[in-house]
Amino acid sequence: MSSHSLDKLFNPQSIAIVGASASPAKAGYQMLNAIRDFKGGIYPINPKAEELLGHRAYPSLKSVGQPIDLAILTLPAALCFAATLDAVEAGVGAIMIISGGFAETGEQGQQLQNGILQLCRDNNIRLLGPNTSGFALPAEGLAISFAPGMDVLRPGPVAVISQSGAINLTMTALAAEHNLGVRLAVGIGNGQDVSSASLIDYLADDPETKLIACYLEGVSNGRQLFDAVAKATHSKPVVIFTVGKADVGEFAASHTGNLIGSFQLKKSALEQAGAVVVESTNEMMDAAKLLSAVRLEPNADPGIALLTGQAGPGMIISDYLRWHGVSMPELDTASVERIGKLLPPMTYFKNPVDTGRPGETFGPVLQAVADDPNIDAILAFALHEPAAIEPTKLFSENRQGISQPLIFGTAGIPESITPTVSALDEMGIPAFTSPDRAARATWALAMDARAAHRRLSAPATGEVRADMPVAGALDEAQGKALLVKLGIGVPESAVCTNSAEAQAAFERLPKPLVVKVLAAEILHKTEVGGVHVNIDTQQKLHGALDAIDGIEVAGDTRYLIEPMAPAGLEIIVGGTNDVSFGPTILVGLGGTAAEALEDVAIRVAPLSENDAMEMLDELRGKALFEGWRGAPALDKQALAKALVNLGNFLYRHPEIREIDLNPVRVYADGLLALDALIVV
Amino acid sequence: MSSHSLDKLFNPQSIAIVGASASPAKAGYQMLNAIRDFKGGIYPINPKAEELLGHRAYPSLKSVGQPIDLAILTLPAALCFAATLDAVEAGVGAIMIISGGFAETGEQGQQLQNGILQLCRDNNIRLLGPNTSGFALPAEGLAISFAPGMDVLRPGPVAVISQSGAINLTMTALAAEHNLGVRLAVGIGNGQDVSSASLIDYLADDPETKLIACYLEGVSNGRQLFDAVAKATHSKPVVIFTVGKADVGEFAASHTGNLIGSFQLKKSALEQAGAVVVESTNEMMDAAKLLSAVRLEPNADPGIALLTGQAGPGMIISDYLRWHGVSMPELDTASVERIGKLLPPMTYFKNPVDTGRPGETFGPVLQAVADDPNIDAILAFALHEPAAIEPTKLFSENRQGISQPLIFGTAGIPESITPTVSALDEMGIPAFTSPDRAARATWALAMDARAAHRRLSAPATGEVRADMPVAGALDEAQGKALLVKLGIGVPESAVCTNSAEAQAAFERLPKPLVVKVLAAEILHKTEVGGVHVNIDTQQKLHGALDAIDGIEVAGDTRYLIEPMAPAGLEIIVGGTNDVSFGPTILVGLGGTAAEALEDVAIRVAPLSENDAMEMLDELRGKALFEGWRGAPALDKQALAKALVNLGNFLYRHPEIREIDLNPVRVYADGLLALDALIVV
Repeated sequence: MSSHSLDKLFNPQSIAIVGASASPAKAGYQMLNAIRDFKGGIYPINPKAEELLGHRAYPSLKSVGQPIDLAILTLPAALCFAATLDAVEAGVGAIMIISGGFAETGEQGQQLQNGILQLCRDNNIRLLGPNTSGFALPAEGLAISFAPGMDVLRPGPVAVISQSGAINLTMTALAAEHNLGVRLAVGIGNGQDVSSASLIDYLADDPETKLIACYLEGVSNGRQLFDAVAKATHSKPVVIFTVGKADVGEFAASHTGNLIGSFQLKKSALEQAGAVVVESTNEMMDAAKLLSAVRLEPNADPGIALLTGQAGPGMIISDYLRWHGVSMPELDTASVERIGKLLPPMTYFKNPVDTGRPGETFGPVLQAVADDPNIDAILAFALHEPAAIEPTKLFSENRQGISQPLIFGTAGIPESITPTVSALDEMGIPAFTSPDRAARATWALAMDARAAHRRLSAPATGEVRADMPVAGALDEAQGKALLVKLGIGVPESAVCTNSAEAQAAFERLPKPLVVKVLAAEILHKTEVGGVHVNIDTQQKLHGALDAIDGIEVAGDTRYLIEPMAPAGLEIIVGGTNDVSFGPTILVGLGGTAAEALEDVAIRVAPLSENDAMEMLDELRGKALFEGWRGAPALDKQALAKALVNLGNFLYRHPEIREIDLNPVRVYADGLLALDALIVV
Repeated sequence: MSSHSLDKLFNPQSIAIVGASASPAKAGYQMLNAIRDFKGGIYPINPKAEELLGHRAYPSLKSVGQPIDLAILTLPAALCFAATLDAVEAGVGAIMIISGGFAETGEQGQQLQNGILQLCRDNNIRLLGPNTSGFALPAEGLAISFAPGMDVLRPGPVAVISQSGAINLTMTALAAEHNLGVRLAVGIGNGQDVSSASLIDYLADDPETKLIACYLEGVSNGRQLFDAVAKATHSKPVVIFTVGKADVGEFAASHTGNLIGSFQLKKSALEQAGAVVVESTNEMMDAAKLLSAVRLEPNADPGIALLTGQAGPGMIISDYLRWHGVSMPELDTASVERIGKLLPPMTYFKNPVDTGRPGETFGPVLQAVADDPNIDAILAFALHEPAAIEPTKLFSENRQGISQPLIFGTAGIPESITPTVSALDEMGIPAFTSPDRAARATWALAMDARAAHRRLSAPATGEVRADMPVAGALDEAQGKALLVKLGIGVPESAVCTNSAEAQAAFERLPKPLVVKVLAAEILHKTEVGGVHVNIDTQQKLHGALDAIDGIEVAGDTRYLIEPMAPAGLEIIVGGTNDVSFGPTILVGLGGTAAEALEDVAIRVAPLSENDAMEMLDELRGKALFEGWRGAPALDKQALAKALVNLGNFLYRHPEIREIDLNPVRVYADGLLALDALIVV
């Protein structure tokens, strides 16, 4: 479906209100009233009326006899299917359904919603809603929404997308607080056709949209969303706020009928796709203000300089940025010397640069910081203190020689700082009214540059050599054979079908050995007594074989015999075909304690090597890879390569439901998967 | 030192400005000008002037010949010691030093600062600064500060304390944004005498102060701060924002000359003492706004109800509160039924209660929520939508029947919501302008009630039975004997001085055994080959003894022989005498992986059992105690008791520098400390 078909929805030439009414309490009145200034055709649909608010009324859509781009259904849920049939006959381009009573109410509502959706899809009609609050396109004077305040939005560069109409309003209100104009504001509701994904895809191509701000609850089409974000972030930042850290699933389902899903997967996937994921509506609009004004080039680790007129705010900002992983590189010796000549000796020059009370040297110091080769953006902070510093004058005078984006932070009595903030905003220097807000917005700037850089590394999607048949379940030996084809190390092994073969393997392989039952249908071998370790005598071997013989299996009993692997860092590697995001890869620390700590990283497959290395860096226990307590550094490259190959394989084999390699041991050179569970 | 001596500083009857000047660029002018409306005696000190700004000038403090409560030193650092001597002779009550050039500049400045401090202490003079921005006491019209805007603060209930003058200004500016008045605003600077601790102690007794908001960098007097917070939170909330998560120590030292210290210890100790610890200046003033208006009774787990007119904000608030550990209990069946009769069937009633678009039922639903026995505070959220809901009217009409604190959250175009927010603030219903801010402030309300409840449990400080001599270092056997006296389990053991004794122990004790070198001076036995496990044969025993004989020890070689302890959850328990906070107790998960994850909890000793249980609940791996993967639940009570006893012991024996019990194994019934390192 071409995203241009959304033009019928967002750039309609004619609008019909189905269920239009003369009663001001009704949505059918409010919607008709909302489009009173619309320049195109306005068609109220109401079989009982002749005329409504000065427009001729029609008994049905098909009776209008004119092309209708957008039909707004203000009917109870039960009447919407019939109205959609009418819209199909009338050749309507897009439908918007305001009413609730669909998927958010249960199974029956879900079926009704599905039926309408299918009808629209079969007939190339775009569907906004049901349960939508509508949308506003301020530059066109359109505010087709019952959310209060949507009709007074200032046009501007930020597109605001939300499943919830109320959060749409919250975000646009916060945008107004920032003097930030809105390109398009949409409340999606239960949206399955016009979803966050299809809107982000559409807005990626809209030159007027400079930034996309999106609030998400449940995500039913994660893969589509991933692709849309990956596309959009090539040309503009995407900032996302999403909920679901806590267990709020039941409430969420009652809201828009969507499952909430795994928060970690959602967040990781969106960041992998290039989005900046924030933690509140306030952070979102702070980030939107900054990123709609300035954006860094893609950069794996942009360097931020902080120039501050007061040490205290400098502390707060430095602590925030560094703790959240933003680099504030030390300035070059030459820069430090140059600044040292400008500032009194008591102050701190390395980065942050603390000017002490700002005065006339603030400008030359700013220039010195800008000339430092390690600096990609500069955050300047100064209290509102007109006697000491006039930021608008300062930046006007010094901006020519500075190529990096500038951000300003300040604090002071609101009435006194508002004019400065507005003036700087106009100059393209986003200004924030507390050290914390300036720091968080600057964090978003750095994260966007990193996310853009992440997208420069193409994921591995090459032909998978291991395109062996994967019909039915794989036993451990088949699974390990597959891993070998994927370049993932496994222990030497022997598959034995009787005691004599096991005896021969015992003699041939270096001891001690592990002897396991081999049967595809046994998913948890240890639990049935199917794993025997430290086998170093004939007696122990036969004890193990006897024990395994006692386990019930589908066919003949078989044994998998392997030398026990040397000690190493135990990790778990997994792959799942997620219902929303499709193939995903997980890595985490192994062992009981670490598993209880849930120290795992997740990505959507296929992965780039960069993605895989970022997964390892994301683990809280990452220090274990780096020569922990005198141990040698471990082979992260081999592990990253294994994650990439496994991801590619999973991506190429959507029939695989689950892969569990638990444990994998990582060594200074290479790794070994000690078990392989592959469920098709 | 009585805190009432601070009255000379904050309620002076006479003020001298040392270094007073007629030159407007100088601090000596600005300070004199700042007190121009002061009603008491004003004495400019300047040997070269006859008169300054209409006041007779004096050559020295002692030449004034009148009592001087407060002397403000606006001199370069080098002249401040002499000026303090002059102040001593003049009988000054308090000194305030504005200049920098002291501890923040290095060793020499530190010595100068120490000298002045000692002089003040010896002569009962209170000292604010050096390096202070001054203070403001708006109710008295006093603003003795060079921070901009301090002279226009509204008087009110919130005391604002900060090491940094700029953060003091930032916090008071954010207070102004909230229509929140200020009782006292103080920039402490390098404050050693008038410190955060002494100010909190002072303000605890000030009936006009309803809430203390404090920004901290390094804390040099942690124990004093702990005690002050514990005292203050009996009568008023203390909200603290502190930095130091990231490595910003070098910059911090350059700022106020204080070491930054461990962030985790600082945060844990402050919460243990009863404070609410927040993460930004914005959060701090949101929390201050709420907690200066309403406070819950002490409560281990207050129940918050959320009543929302829109589901989206309800999601954000519920997710935030639950994720941050705040209880939103399900409403009683009776309440749900009662609400069900008031609201349409599609909405969610259990908590949050989602009214759908708010209308005339909002009031009765609010009353039903308030009547639920599980609810200690109610957060109501509704978009600004005058056609649907008028919050001031709603709350006026319904407030009589509601005993719980009410909080309101809203969103809308700033101009339109400001009057509602102000009106609700006046009614004692703190209002916040985004779902996130309302949620965070409500979190602070719950945390304050929990912190207050925490302080109801007295820490154990009883006589310690184990008051054995601890002169010199303790060897492992002595250490374990001490643990036994503290009620902490250790394995059965034998101390052997020769092979025959070891042989006898081997025969007597259940095998397998561990054989260790016993020598107080060997802190890391494993590293010198002094620990031999799995000893179950004569041959292995003698091998172990021979190996230990090869280790060089101070006196005769001795062996500690113990049965190997059964498998259990390995944890580490430690105690340290922290330079700032004094005796502290740490517990963490043991084992390589868990140690790399740094999953530890810390508290200041002595502890209550409640503190100790909270430590265990704070561990990210706490699920390991609760019957992990089919294992039995472990004896948290025994572990908590051990932490309490160890804390009490450490508190009673400040000569102990460090205690390390690594590992301790925790079982379904009891625990065993397998090693004990005690450094005096």
